[in-house]
Amino acid sequence: MRALDIISKKRDKLELSKDEITFLIDGYTRDEIPDYQMAAWAMAVLLNGMTHEETAHLTNAMANSGDVLNLAELNSIIVDKHSTGGVGDKTTLSIAPIVAACGLAVGKMSGRGLGYSGGTIDKLESIPGYQAELSTKEFISQLKDIGIVLAGQSLDLAPADGKLYALRDVTGTVPSIPLIASSIMSKKIAAGAEAIVLDVKVGEGAFMKTFEDARELAKVMVNIGKLSNRRVIALLSPMDQPLGMAVGNALELKEAVLTLRGKGPEDYHEHCLNIASYMLLLGKKANSLEEARIMAQKSINDGTAFEKFRQFVAAQGGDLACIDNLDLLAKAENILEITAESSGYIAEVNAQDVGEASVILGGGRTKKGDLIDPAVGVMVYVKIGDYVEKGQKVFDVHYNKAELVQNAIDKLKESIKFSEQPVQPPPPNLGVIGM
Amino acid sequence: MRALDIISKKRDKLELSKDEITFLIDGYTRDEIPDYQMAAWAMAVLLNGMTHEETAHLTNAMANSGDVLNLAELNSIIVDKHSTGGVGDKTTLSIAPIVAACGLAVGKMSGRGLGYSGGTIDKLESIPGYQAELSTKEFISQLKDIGIVLAGQSLDLAPADGKLYALRDVTGTVPSIPLIASSIMSKKIAAGAEAIVLDVKVGEGAFMKTFEDARELAKVMVNIGKLSNRRVIALLSPMDQPLGMAVGNALELKEAVLTLRGKGPEDYHEHCLNIASYMLLLGKKANSLEEARIMAQKSINDGTAFEKFRQFVAAQGGDLACIDNLDLLAKAENILEITAESSGYIAEVNAQDVGEASVILGGGRTKKGDLIDPAVGVMVYVKIGDYVEKGQKVFDVHYNKAELVQNAIDKLKESIKFSEQPVQPPPPNLGVIGM
Repeated sequence: MRALDIISKKRDKLELSKDEITFLIDGYTRDEIPDYQMAAWAMAVLLNGMTHEETAHLTNAMANSGDVLNLAELNSIIVDKHSTGGVGDKTTLSIAPIVAACGLAVGKMSGRGLGYSGGTIDKLESIPGYQAELSTKEFISQLKDIGIVLAGQSLDLAPADGKLYALRDVTGTVPSIPLIASSIMSKKIAAGAEAIVLDVKVGEGAFMKTFEDARELAKVMVNIGKLSNRRVIALLSPMDQPLGMAVGNALELKEAVLTLRGKGPEDYHEHCLNIASYMLLLGKKANSLEEARIMAQKSINDGTAFEKFRQFVAAQGGDLACIDNLDLLAKAENILEITAESSGYIAEVNAQDVGEASVILGGGRTKKGDLIDPAVGVMVYVKIGDYVEKGQKVFDVHYNKAELVQNAIDKLKESIKFSEQPVQPPPPNLGVIGM
Repeated sequence: MRALDIISKKRDKLELSKDEITFLIDGYTRDEIPDYQMAAWAMAVLLNGMTHEETAHLTNAMANSGDVLNLAELNSIIVDKHSTGGVGDKTTLSIAPIVAACGLAVGKMSGRGLGYSGGTIDKLESIPGYQAELSTKEFISQLKDIGIVLAGQSLDLAPADGKLYALRDVTGTVPSIPLIASSIMSKKIAAGAEAIVLDVKVGEGAFMKTFEDARELAKVMVNIGKLSNRRVIALLSPMDQPLGMAVGNALELKEAVLTLRGKGPEDYHEHCLNIASYMLLLGKKANSLEEARIMAQKSINDGTAFEKFRQFVAAQGGDLACIDNLDLLAKAENILEITAESSGYIAEVNAQDVGEASVILGGGRTKKGDLIDPAVGVMVYVKIGDYVEKGQKVFDVHYNKAELVQNAIDKLKESIKFSEQPVQPPPPNLGVIGM
């Protein structure tokens, strides 16, 4: 078998076999197939597409390119969750303790943020002392002991995916649905997931800007699950406006904790219950979505979800005092209020603009390795469909560097559109694929 | 400007500007843009195409990536010729002396063979002592002195093309008409050509298997000429069966010399007169194609073309005795006759099969750097349309290694198809583009 023939076959729109895809991925992982051949292949895949079968083979070849976590000793169905990323999306921080409190082990590896979309690990690192880097042994042992781990991608799972992703990033081959889907799913499968709840975001603040693309990505991932013997469901969630109110690392952590204590913003609370319910259903802790929802809400009401979060923070070295008293978390030196410039119905709160404002303030990265400021960010006080009076507060800008604030204000002012006519708020979700 | 943005633009089917293409080619030549980015770009070009303008910009960027030969001191219109390659295509060996004998300087750089299609330099190297490697100074000085040089690609002209071609060869990005066209034309432009006669082969033994592809390639190259201020015409020639009778290095050289002495096979003689006439016309040595044809034929009849060939061989160190007595050229130890297995009209003499038979015997390369045996090859005694009787000789196999001969015989037997009905011979040419 030769890489050249496999590239040429994909170039000519022919379907690749499992053996061909495995040959390519294994050779690339072992540095036997050079970057330039993979780059040509990736562009051919982007432009000519892949069948569901090819995408599943690619996913499994990447999942098996390194260690695959064996969590059999947990005697639990391993359910993972993935969000394609959005603005204000701190969902993992709330649903992991909720689901764990309901008795389903949640061991998740998450990434850092890049661009306007935040990263779970960055948000957790606003807790002083929190340790993201765990060994496989520590990961499994914590999962066994307390049923919850939230770690960085320090374990060398699916190394082929890491290598291919870095190459796609510099060769214009990121926006390919089969490549995106296999990248996401390979990491989940390598991390031992038997069932996966996918939260595919759609809209201005999401990687997938159109409903059609988001639905296609969801379908491809659900099909990878089917062909790989994993139960997978994908929720399509709107991401036109930020989720919840907080955008920025410590601000989002605080909001996630408040939600665990029953005091979160309504849209975010609702979204968490929804995701958690599907996880509990797939993990067979509940027989119906309704039953799962009641369990999840109960874990908030009776404090067990919050307690589970405290256990997790303690286990990973975080300072519990900051969790018990959220005022001890990093706070920006200045808060500047932005008010509505006219009266009317909110027609748009552009999530990408709000996310970019937070990056401008130092809350995110424009390139890998950038340092971030956990304290800065934006609080959003309006939702699409709300009626606001001129002068009413719409944002609080939390900032530390005065020289950065004007650009952030401009972005935020751009993000808001008013309408004289009433505006319908977006639905909380846009559909479920795979049920 | 960033390579990533240029790749993404081509991926998204947008037209690249001259500056963008020049940035890419210059950066690649200087090793500032890595192979993996060029590979992704080349695949995007292959699958999404390029406009005539983009192709001309690419051609000129590659032509200007190194030295461009300045032949102004020759006080002659510099006319070059290029064949896209075929089986038995030794045309350069005959037309260069014909055209030079008619007073038009011919300085050509040619390649070596790879696969079933032979290379001019390999054929010339069957002359003992012939020196293909010349410096720029030697090249120009010989061209000035005797009006004819046939050299290898030793001068570092269009280095970007050399680098990109090597990359395309291993990334499945060879069969792209804009990339093929710009590769051919960039070398011709860098070699100082003001006018170019292209011989685009079509059929089973050609790189372009269909008339549509060949015509498209011809059109693209003619348009590069138009956009780059070069007069270019492209002939479309059939390459279903071998050109002439000889396939193999010394055998072809011999046939080319016999043709210069008026004793060549009819189809090859006719093809050479045709190409030479267009060169003389573009080089303004004749006012019409008819006049050019008469000049070319006269140079054969009066011996001046053959004498010009002798001057060229002597100037490049070749042994003239072998030219004056062709029996002194390398000869295979054994000749095996293949006869017709049935009577009938010849419907096919598959050129690729015949070319591959010669490679099997050691007359060509399956990979770069393979040693070749100048003596071996195949003589073809039938043409499509001929009527043959069972038992009549159709091929002579010239071989040195008995263990290779059976595979070659099998190939040759496969190459021939008979028909009970009369078969129309293919026309000598399929059209001219650019006049």
